[in-house]
Amino acid sequence: MPRPVTLFTGQWADLPLEELAEKVSSWGFDGLELACWGDHFEVDRALAEPDYCAAKRALLDRHGLGCWAIGAHLVGQAVCDPIDSRHRGILPPEVWGDGDPAGVRARAGERMKDTARAAAQLGVTQVNAFTGSAVWHMLYSFPPNDFDEIERGYEDFAERWGPIVDVFDAEGVRFGLEVHPTEIAYDFVTTRKTLDAVGRREGFGINFDPSHFAHQSLDPAAFVTEFADRVYHVHVKDSKKRLDGRRSILGGHLNFGEAGRGWDFVSPGHGDVDFEELFRALNRIGYAGPLSIEWEDSGMDREWGAQDAIAFVRRTDFAPSEVAFDAAMQR
Amino acid sequence: MPRPVTLFTGQWADLPLEELAEKVSSWGFDGLELACWGDHFEVDRALAEPDYCAAKRALLDRHGLGCWAIGAHLVGQAVCDPIDSRHRGILPPEVWGDGDPAGVRARAGERMKDTARAAAQLGVTQVNAFTGSAVWHMLYSFPPNDFDEIERGYEDFAERWGPIVDVFDAEGVRFGLEVHPTEIAYDFVTTRKTLDAVGRREGFGINFDPSHFAHQSLDPAAFVTEFADRVYHVHVKDSKKRLDGRRSILGGHLNFGEAGRGWDFVSPGHGDVDFEELFRALNRIGYAGPLSIEWEDSGMDREWGAQDAIAFVRRTDFAPSEVAFDAAMQR
Amino acid sequence: MPRPVTLFTGQWADLPLEELAEKVSSWGFDGLELACWGDHFEVDRALAEPDYCAAKRALLDRHGLGCWAIGAHLVGQAVCDPIDSRHRGILPPEVWGDGDPAGVRARAGERMKDTARAAAQLGVTQVNAFTGSAVWHMLYSFPPNDFDEIERGYEDFAERWGPIVDVFDAEGVRFGLEVHPTEIAYDFVTTRKTLDAVGRREGFGINFDPSHFAHQSLDPAAFVTEFADRVYHVHVKDSKKRLDGRRSILGGHLNFGEAGRGWDFVSPGHGDVDFEELFRALNRIGYAGPLSIEWEDSGMDREWGAQDAIAFVRRTDFAPSEVAFDAAMQR
Amino acid sequence: MPRPVTLFTGQWADLPLEELAEKVSSWGFDGLELACWGDHFEVDRALAEPDYCAAKRALLDRHGLGCWAIGAHLVGQAVCDPIDSRHRGILPPEVWGDGDPAGVRARAGERMKDTARAAAQLGVTQVNAFTGSAVWHMLYSFPPNDFDEIERGYEDFAERWGPIVDVFDAEGVRFGLEVHPTEIAYDFVTTRKTLDAVGRREGFGINFDPSHFAHQSLDPAAFVTEFADRVYHVHVKDSKKRLDGRRSILGGHLNFGEAGRGWDFVSPGHGDVDFEELFRALNRIGYAGPLSIEWEDSGMDREWGAQDAIAFVRRTDFAPSEVAFDAAMQR
Amino acid sequence: MPRPVTLFTGQWADLPLEELAEKVSSWGFDGLELACWGDHFEVDRALAEPDYCAAKRALLDRHGLGCWAIGAHLVGQAVCDPIDSRHRGILPPEVWGDGDPAGVRARAGERMKDTARAAAQLGVTQVNAFTGSAVWHMLYSFPPNDFDEIERGYEDFAERWGPIVDVFDAEGVRFGLEVHPTEIAYDFVTTRKTLDAVGRREGFGINFDPSHFAHQSLDPAAFVTEFADRVYHVHVKDSKKRLDGRRSILGGHLNFGEAGRGWDFVSPGHGDVDFEELFRALNRIGYAGPLSIEWEDSGMDREWGAQDAIAFVRRTDFAPSEVAFDAAMQR
Amino acid sequence: MPRPVTLFTGQWADLPLEELAEKVSSWGFDGLELACWGDHFEVDRALAEPDYCAAKRALLDRHGLGCWAIGAHLVGQAVCDPIDSRHRGILPPEVWGDGDPAGVRARAGERMKDTARAAAQLGVTQVNAFTGSAVWHMLYSFPPNDFDEIERGYEDFAERWGPIVDVFDAEGVRFGLEVHPTEIAYDFVTTRKTLDAVGRREGFGINFDPSHFAHQSLDPAAFVTEFADRVYHVHVKDSKKRLDGRRSILGGHLNFGEAGRGWDFVSPGHGDVDFEELFRALNRIGYAGPLSIEWEDSGMDREWGAQDAIAFVRRTDFAPSEVAFDAAMQR
Repeated sequence: MPRPVTLFTGQWADLPLEELAEKVSSWGFDGLELACWGDHFEVDRALAEPDYCAAKRALLDRHGLGCWAIGAHLVGQAVCDPIDSRHRGILPPEVWGDGDPAGVRARAGERMKDTARAAAQLGVTQVNAFTGSAVWHMLYSFPPNDFDEIERGYEDFAERWGPIVDVFDAEGVRFGLEVHPTEIAYDFVTTRKTLDAVGRREGFGINFDPSHFAHQSLDPAAFVTEFADRVYHVHVKDSKKRLDGRRSILGGHLNFGEAGRGWDFVSPGHGDVDFEELFRALNRIGYAGPLSIEWEDSGMDREWGAQDAIAFVRRTDFAPSEVAFDAAMQR
Repeated sequence: MPRPVTLFTGQWADLPLEELAEKVSSWGFDGLELACWGDHFEVDRALAEPDYCAAKRALLDRHGLGCWAIGAHLVGQAVCDPIDSRHRGILPPEVWGDGDPAGVRARAGERMKDTARAAAQLGVTQVNAFTGSAVWHMLYSFPPNDFDEIERGYEDFAERWGPIVDVFDAEGVRFGLEVHPTEIAYDFVTTRKTLDAVGRREGFGINFDPSHFAHQSLDPAAFVTEFADRVYHVHVKDSKKRLDGRRSILGGHLNFGEAGRGWDFVSPGHGDVDFEELFRALNRIGYAGPLSIEWEDSGMDREWGAQDAIAFVRRTDFAPSEVAFDAAMQR
Repeated sequence: MPRPVTLFTGQWADLPLEELAEKVSSWGFDGLELACWGDHFEVDRALAEPDYCAAKRALLDRHGLGCWAIGAHLVGQAVCDPIDSRHRGILPPEVWGDGDPAGVRARAGERMKDTARAAAQLGVTQVNAFTGSAVWHMLYSFPPNDFDEIERGYEDFAERWGPIVDVFDAEGVRFGLEVHPTEIAYDFVTTRKTLDAVGRREGFGINFDPSHFAHQSLDPAAFVTEFADRVYHVHVKDSKKRLDGRRSILGGHLNFGEAGRGWDFVSPGHGDVDFEELFRALNRIGYAGPLSIEWEDSGMDREWGAQDAIAFVRRTDFAPSEVAFDAAMQR
Repeated sequence: MPRPVTLFTGQWADLPLEELAEKVSSWGFDGLELACWGDHFEVDRALAEPDYCAAKRALLDRHGLGCWAIGAHLVGQAVCDPIDSRHRGILPPEVWGDGDPAGVRARAGERMKDTARAAAQLGVTQVNAFTGSAVWHMLYSFPPNDFDEIERGYEDFAERWGPIVDVFDAEGVRFGLEVHPTEIAYDFVTTRKTLDAVGRREGFGINFDPSHFAHQSLDPAAFVTEFADRVYHVHVKDSKKRLDGRRSILGGHLNFGEAGRGWDFVSPGHGDVDFEELFRALNRIGYAGPLSIEWEDSGMDREWGAQDAIAFVRRTDFAPSEVAFDAAMQR
Repeated sequence: MPRPVTLFTGQWADLPLEELAEKVSSWGFDGLELACWGDHFEVDRALAEPDYCAAKRALLDRHGLGCWAIGAHLVGQAVCDPIDSRHRGILPPEVWGDGDPAGVRARAGERMKDTARAAAQLGVTQVNAFTGSAVWHMLYSFPPNDFDEIERGYEDFAERWGPIVDVFDAEGVRFGLEVHPTEIAYDFVTTRKTLDAVGRREGFGINFDPSHFAHQSLDPAAFVTEFADRVYHVHVKDSKKRLDGRRSILGGHLNFGEAGRGWDFVSPGHGDVDFEELFRALNRIGYAGPLSIEWEDSGMDREWGAQDAIAFVRRTDFAPSEVAFDAAMQR
Repeated sequence: MPRPVTLFTGQWADLPLEELAEKVSSWGFDGLELACWGDHFEVDRALAEPDYCAAKRALLDRHGLGCWAIGAHLVGQAVCDPIDSRHRGILPPEVWGDGDPAGVRARAGERMKDTARAAAQLGVTQVNAFTGSAVWHMLYSFPPNDFDEIERGYEDFAERWGPIVDVFDAEGVRFGLEVHPTEIAYDFVTTRKTLDAVGRREGFGINFDPSHFAHQSLDPAAFVTEFADRVYHVHVKDSKKRLDGRRSILGGHLNFGEAGRGWDFVSPGHGDVDFEELFRALNRIGYAGPLSIEWEDSGMDREWGAQDAIAFVRRTDFAPSEVAFDAAMQR
């Protein structure tokens, strides 16, 4: 039985879910990873309106679509971040409130707890999100970092997310951090530190997205092998380096899609991620959850691309072997 | 006549200048680029004490060392940066003052003006420094940047440095920004924006250091070719990528010298910088200033390394041709 | 609306157009770029016979094929070339005449004017061709070139093609030079010189064919970006390097298809051209004209290959994005 | 007419031939290369039972499958090898007998002669197999080899296989050694020595399998070009290097499929073999025999893979050109 | 204090030690790693003749040469190997005896115990050697290996070497296995298994020689990092791959120095080993023992090469840093 | 005894030989390869003036310089070339005469015969030169080449050079063609054809210069191995590719030294030639003649470079081994 292929709806929140579901179903997807913005999955309504979750499920069922996870990246980001004006753009007004940083962070934390509760209502056991980070901005050590401050960033993370994960545990829902630059974990070293900071508790795992690894020169297959017991969900997203001696791998403070960037996101299979090696590694660790396409490519028509992407996954993802060849070779 | 080879004293400020000068002279250097910290070159004393500069020159002369530039990186950093506790470690107490950000930035700006005045007193026409940046921390666009804010960062830079460069112009001294991550300019795109922001005025140029380019996958020779008329000073420093799929090119929030980093600084000639192509490009643009070795390698003995470095430069830097070969080939 | 995919008929001139059109239509092409040899498009008859062009159009219409351009490479070659016996093989007898070089060049120039007139009759606004070159043979500077003579080659080109382009302008037809070794322009440097030589006039543009760039180690996407306003037509053709230390990149004076060559033409998608990056660049510059497959692969069955090629283009060429992802990410 | 695509049944001997034939036929294969183990093709029964071969053919015919070759790798291995306990696992009991090395080798040789006779009965003119080698274990020269002993290994090979090939000649059947580590020939050098040892006689040729070449850094297309007149049969099998500085290219005494190996077999098109260049080379030498997929990939479901493999071959193998392009270009 | 640089005398055993010592001393070496063959260091005489060791020391002292280790590779090889005629060439007659395998192995084991005793007499605490291997010849798993037999090879090794290491422990001498193809350990995987087999006891460590790693595509710096506490001695030897698609990485059963090999040993600094990264790693693990040049290059004059090699080591090996740069940067 | 290192004087003909000899001698060269232009070696005077050669020898002797070859590249070029105005610049007036092509070619041929005679007078047995080529300009097959014409070019070469080589044979002097683009031979294929055209006669060999091979992606070591018996003289010259997607490997009709070229000549050791592999190959074929540095680097001071070059050769060229290591390893 192959892994289900879903679409993460975060980049399609301009479309009503009904309209999106119809398209996605016709393209052959098995389900959706609902974003907690737009009208796709509204945490506050899910908790306030008794029929909300049932209606969402019914909508999905009408189109033959499953749902194994939801994505709450935007609110999660505000839990640990130093808050600035950019967060206003990604937060619900009631979470942003007056914009006072301490209050924003606290309200974001509460909303994450509610997200676990709403997921449980929907019958979903996996919530993916960002965590934010108090120390990401100290990426380059100049002025020289006080590395104790980096350590305090991990403590801050553990203090803020510990109580949230308690609620996740209580609801029977698992959290999946999308390891990503700007988050508390974005590579091997920081993922080890992050998992250690929360005592490697089971409720806190990873939503693995290889597109954030390729441009860092990191090996996705090695990552899922090392963190095998915490890979709870997988995104299928790709990125491509376009280095020519004049484009910086750091991105040049240019927006995605600008020609001068040293790397950019591209439709799965069009970039540097070696998906076959990744899928083989997922086979080895026994990952049986969704492959959730997070589609983002500033140079490609979105609908052409989504169909191209699912065709790519269908022809690249395969089940592991159940045969020992030597046995066949021997009498 | 070859270019003079100097040593930047910033990484040797734990040694009194007298002691350092003796060593450096014996190793065959032509001069020093004095750092404005330690006892190497103290801007406040240079302006306050009538004989200070003459005494410095006498010290250098005793060791047969010239001085073509001074380095004021630490104070410069505070002019545009959002100030945090790390700046306290790199600023003189009177510049840090009460640590109120606006005041720190203002005092740092004034000190930079004084630095131009002090350089003039010393008979030096080149001051190298950092500028800081109000927007560096928005390196990755998540939460999504308001790119107008990036533009405002360049305006802030121009507003703060314009009056400083006025003083430089008045003193007949040129400013050289060391293009570097954490500064307003760190690659091709941001250098273009930076120079444009100050109207490409002559008083504001570049201290080019290739070690900040190699790990970004940028081409040093192409950089000095494009910005030929603003390359006022050159550092000889190297860096090396050690990518193995587990070390991030972003550095992993690890200090220099830690084994888990994806890149690190190394002694010149031991890393990824193609110095020969850089020196050929400097020949083509007619750069005749110092090659100033900024020596930093966390895995090598400092004194062994400095001598290895000057030997490397001496055998790698050569004068351009003055012959047309075809002419010799023809009768 | 995607770009139309056409077949350039130059390599199929052994087949009557009727027969070829039937095949090509059944393979799913949108149209033909008619070669001005064989019976595909005869310039002299087009001007002499009132119904000729209408009959051609009717033939194409019967097969559901459009025509956006014609190719007059062979005659164009003789306009600037030093004429030798090889030109006899590619010229109509009346253009070759007695083979006297000056006369051949002049007659070829007149025929190119007629080609513009014939194209207008056919209702086509794009003529692709070669230009020849008086100086190509001085490719390697030994005996040492007098580089003024190279400059005079560009003047000769401008003098010969200026009056031809005047006729193109008058007819409302644009000329597209296929940038190619043996022509006045074959790389970035020479294309800049060529366009400058004709004053960057609008009537003279480029038929871009990436197969002539890959073996020169040139970047097709960078080329269409630099010359965006002169890319009037695009060929889809590929080439592949097969360097093993014994095969010269210069080709070894061996014919296409011989095993000892260092590079050769291959069916699109089987070689070194990065078509996805090229198509993305064409999207960025807004190119909406035909992708015209010029099929040539000495090791592959021609009909198998043409069908393989159109399938390749259909799955590789995509429309650009019309969505800003950040907008979707924000509420 | 394209080359037939067959499946080598050696890795499927756990399935009865009837069951396998039905599957393979439904996947679109043209035929089978029958392994001489399992119930696929039993040499002793073929010679003993008058109807055996006709019944096999009838079975294949029922499923529309041809048969151009059989594979007798296991018995062939024992002809030259120093016999140890591992051979017991791959030999029929009557060939193993009491396991005395000299007797085993002699009986294996006789069985190979019978295999030629049985192939003739089945109407097949090609038998592929291994040969074993008396000297393979001296792969690394420590303790220092007496290289005369290596030469004696080739003489031993010639003495043992000469009489076998006599029978092949008499039966009108050709022998195809699968060039492979552990055999008398496994690279260019040893293949030259092997063919020389048997006097380059026509009855002794090669079953070429590129999967044994890629991990040795050998070029399959160059191999079939050099040994064009002895390439009698071709396997389509692939292998992939996964070197990361910790996995040895020598394999590490680890079984196929273990993660720590530096290379492994993979489904065709998923590895390092450049099949297009190989197929072009086969076109050039005029090879018109089967492309026989030997499917082995420890990380992929066998049935998914076999179908993936034939799709890969169908889209990668093409007929050579019959057109000279210059002719079309000239009038 | 830098690491001493010694020459391993194994490849110079055709020269009397007196003559060799004079040369080596004049070339600037710090000492010798004496081979236990030729007249360099004779284990039997060292135990039998009271003055033997003192005379050797006196000889070395006369030339200003130290001795930190001896090499007993040849006898060690016979302890675990399946004995064949090649061993006769590398063993002393009294160890070879009648050549009966069990007896040869037993006598080789006893001689290794004597080697520890003789080393102690000489005042040397490090003996480097090979171990041989009962299973090396099963390098490629065909006929399919019984992997339990591989395990039994490690048990055999532990049984044979355990009593030997007991004597080493008693004598206060450490054993250093040169990890090498044909030995019980030759890569990361097998070194782990080997050390585990002897319970990671301190008396059994590694003589690390990177030349056996480069052609396997293994990373020497990673190896010394992983096995930091067992790296007891280091050889400086290099190897180079010369792969061109026709030369097998397996070596082709060709002797060292033959042009057709895919790799070969070369003078240090002329091959694929990254010695700088290795020496940096040795600095990190605190290795302070000898760098012992084992010189072997079939294409270079031996005496020219030895001098080239020590110059290479002197300019490549450096002491680690004792400075923290940030400290210097901060006031 | 190492190979002598000489300087080819062609690029120094602006200096009187006396002045050049003094410099070259002080730099440590063993001798000069005299160019037949400037006052270095004048063929006409050598034949006309009885003391000319003795005086040259005396001059060289005074500076301790030998002479093993002379270079007559410029006149040789005119023997087969289609003559144009560029040849006037490289020919003596009496050879150019009225510039009529047939006459120029004939006179150049006669002068080459005289060159052999003059060399004999000087006591030199090797003359290096170019040959020109009637077909080089047909490098790219468009307009499509008549490949019979290429063959006729080789016949023309043989007809013109046959009688010249007869004189060489008579004088006991060997001819060495510098294989080079623009000559009858410039790669492997054309060198085979060239040698075949003159019947592989001994009097006609090769002056091998690797700088013409690197930018063609050809392997110098493989070349001297294949043509071992015709490598009569060796130039040490280097070239470097600087490909960035915008610079053509074809050179762009730009003069040497211009920044836009895709490759250029550089001082030995600064480019792409693998001199160590070349020197190892020369050792294997037993080449004991001069290594003649032809120094040309448009970006480096000529005198700095010549000294850098000889230092490079002295540290890179070594004698072959005379030891068999296994012998030393065995008792």
